[in-house]
Amino acid sequence: MARVVVDVMPKPEILDPQGKAVLGALPRLGFDLVTDVRQGKRFELQVDGEITDAVLAEIEKVAGTLLSNPVIEDFEVHVEEHSVAEVAHEAGRA
Amino acid sequence: MARVVVDVMPKPEILDPQGKAVLGALPRLGFDLVTDVRQGKRFELQVDGEITDAVLAEIEKVAGTLLSNPVIEDFEVHVEEHSVAEVAHEAGRA
Repeated sequence: MARVVVDVMPKPEILDPQGKAVLGALPRLGFDLVTDVRQGKRFELQVDGEITDAVLAEIEKVAGTLLSNPVIEDFEVHVEEHSVAEVAHEAGRA
Repeated sequence: MARVVVDVMPKPEILDPQGKAVLGALPRLGFDLVTDVRQGKRFELQVDGEITDAVLAEIEKVAGTLLSNPVIEDFEVHVEEHSVAEVAHEAGRA
């Protein structure tokens, strides 16, 4: 089982009210090191079998049509060994 | 300017209706290689100055309190050289 990750973020020129809300909340909670926050989406896709160029090409098509709105969002596709759940588990958080 | 990324995903045992909706839509759109989809959030945080262990510790605290709900979500913190926008730009998509 292979895992492909699609990250979707609002384009830099697009307002990001969710990110701004997080940024505004940080100093109120006592955190003052972060100067900007952007919020986007992360998709973890499971693929049966090997990740070939054809698989990645199909997932790029999925990312550009179903998972993101190309007018306001950028996306990136990459293969990732470990899911967030696995990393959190290793760090003793899950 | 350094960039720290926080990935937040629903825990494996938690139902993920958004991911299921995407998974259900894929075959209708002619994509049939993906066997499972989980949808989560991605935060890109800008930090002034260097990323020290103290900065990462503060961001882990932010991730565990403000950015994720530890009852239903796992998170992962890592430093990333390039934003999604920069990667998309290099790939000629933005």
